[in-house]
Amino acid sequence: MSPAPRLPPAARALRAGDRRVLARLITETENDLPRARAVLRAIYPLTGRARIVGLTGPLGVGKSSLINALLLHLRQRGRRVAVVAVDPSSPFSGGSVLGDRIRFDTASEDPHVYVRSMASRGHTGGLARTTREVVRLLEAAGFDLVLVETVGSGQVDVEVREIATTSVVVLVPHLGDEVQTLKAGLFEIADVFCVNKADLPGADRARRDLSELAALGAPASGWRPPVVATSTSDGTGIPELWEAIEAHERYLDESGRRLAEERRRLTNEVVTLAEERFRTHLARDRSLARRIAPVLARRIDPETAARRWWAEIQRRR
Amino acid sequence: MSPAPRLPPAARALRAGDRRVLARLITETENDLPRARAVLRAIYPLTGRARIVGLTGPLGVGKSSLINALLLHLRQRGRRVAVVAVDPSSPFSGGSVLGDRIRFDTASEDPHVYVRSMASRGHTGGLARTTREVVRLLEAAGFDLVLVETVGSGQVDVEVREIATTSVVVLVPHLGDEVQTLKAGLFEIADVFCVNKADLPGADRARRDLSELAALGAPASGWRPPVVATSTSDGTGIPELWEAIEAHERYLDESGRRLAEERRRLTNEVVTLAEERFRTHLARDRSLARRIAPVLARRIDPETAARRWWAEIQRRR
Repeated sequence: MSPAPRLPPAARALRAGDRRVLARLITETENDLPRARAVLRAIYPLTGRARIVGLTGPLGVGKSSLINALLLHLRQRGRRVAVVAVDPSSPFSGGSVLGDRIRFDTASEDPHVYVRSMASRGHTGGLARTTREVVRLLEAAGFDLVLVETVGSGQVDVEVREIATTSVVVLVPHLGDEVQTLKAGLFEIADVFCVNKADLPGADRARRDLSELAALGAPASGWRPPVVATSTSDGTGIPELWEAIEAHERYLDESGRRLAEERRRLTNEVVTLAEERFRTHLARDRSLARRIAPVLARRIDPETAARRWWAEIQRRR
Repeated sequence: MSPAPRLPPAARALRAGDRRVLARLITETENDLPRARAVLRAIYPLTGRARIVGLTGPLGVGKSSLINALLLHLRQRGRRVAVVAVDPSSPFSGGSVLGDRIRFDTASEDPHVYVRSMASRGHTGGLARTTREVVRLLEAAGFDLVLVETVGSGQVDVEVREIATTSVVVLVPHLGDEVQTLKAGLFEIADVFCVNKADLPGADRARRDLSELAALGAPASGWRPPVVATSTSDGTGIPELWEAIEAHERYLDESGRRLAEERRRLTNEVVTLAEERFRTHLARDRSLARRIAPVLARRIDPETAARRWWAEIQRRR
């Protein structure tokens, strides 16, 4: 596989490690600009081998501090690491709510670390719409390890499963109502559980409870999510957390699950992209007003209107 | 408009106020059963005139207690009221997390009150996928006032705008991080703000802050969301909250916005239903595996695969 000769100039600069080009391409990707589209198409063959570690969990569990601690640990082991942190933003204005605050203080001048915030821009599910593409740009720029922090505003950020090779669900000893809401979805997402703020009372209990639940939910896949206790105030458990992530990555390789998971993710991606094309088509369809009028007049119900529309799209040449 | 003669038997029983039929039709709607589909089609001409009041806000602000207090207030004024409360549930298992707990203790034997919980079943946005249809069943059953409580698990439940004629955003004096996350989206949703637990310290401050923000965000529509302080422990502000909701409903009629909003909602509904048909079509498409293989082999990027697929669907007769 040697697609380098056909790469457009921006993609070549990206591959050579030019950070200004990387930053610009990320912004262009977020804004759906044509050059970024062309670069993403060209670099796609270079991607798919990176380890993508997603960290998800409710607001206030310390995901950012945990990523800082992981960054430090990984740098001490000589790893290059990129971080993508998704911030909540209004579904309407598109601005980032936390946008300007400094989150990552570790190694910001380090050439082997790259940190980028993205606004979710109203995309639900815990990621921004273009987070996947940004991760691909980072991989093409030579980062074979990318940490992704989801919004984590209270829902289970299920979408992290669509980009991460290992998903870490971060909790704290006492979550009260939150965990009630989250619990049901947690086990379908988590490859690794992290009980952060393990210096708080109740941490041992929380770890035991989660371990028991993880054992009960004995997944068909043959992987039982380990539960690691961490504290970013004194660094407790950070090496163990990283070891748990690496163990899951080894499991993916040894079990053959890596390819199956990649197929699942890519299938979902292609289907979603085809749906987006369809949605664009509908929004531009000149028959829209004519189709809605009888629904508004209560002569045709919405389901029937939708069925007829789809039937006509299929018939049309 | 006199569609009654053509109504199927279940729809006729529904219209006559048969509660067992109503309950069964709601369950059948949630499970997408054909009879419910037929009834929904038949009753659609009977719907579209009810006041649908959506209550949204983060977990723990007391939405359920507030609805109880509103129910009591409305019953004292002789109004018939239906309530639909959406509970969080796992995105995977489909079960309701809070399902069995008793939330509404007011007037459960009252023939002029109907209360129903729905599990969100993994649908994001604060509602269940079929909440809109359930509201239509309630309207056909004679309820011209329906209160809808969203999941409210920390995100802004934007979807309430797609079914409610008046959306009430419920907050409490101190929300900390939560409000940071929510703020940006609040003003695009709220027709009325409610600061609940107004007996807590900081309530006056919260009400002033919100009022100032609401004034700043001066909407093009000409409606400035009022801010009402309530306390369900002693009933403070409940009549004022109801008056604010009615004021917004009057505004909709007097300004002509009611029709515009109904058109927006129905357009979104028809487009979404057409998208669902398309999604079903893709999932059943036999070419799926053949289309994904070159993407998995990194020969074709996902965007290109999606574009080709959509192009072929359009060409096909």
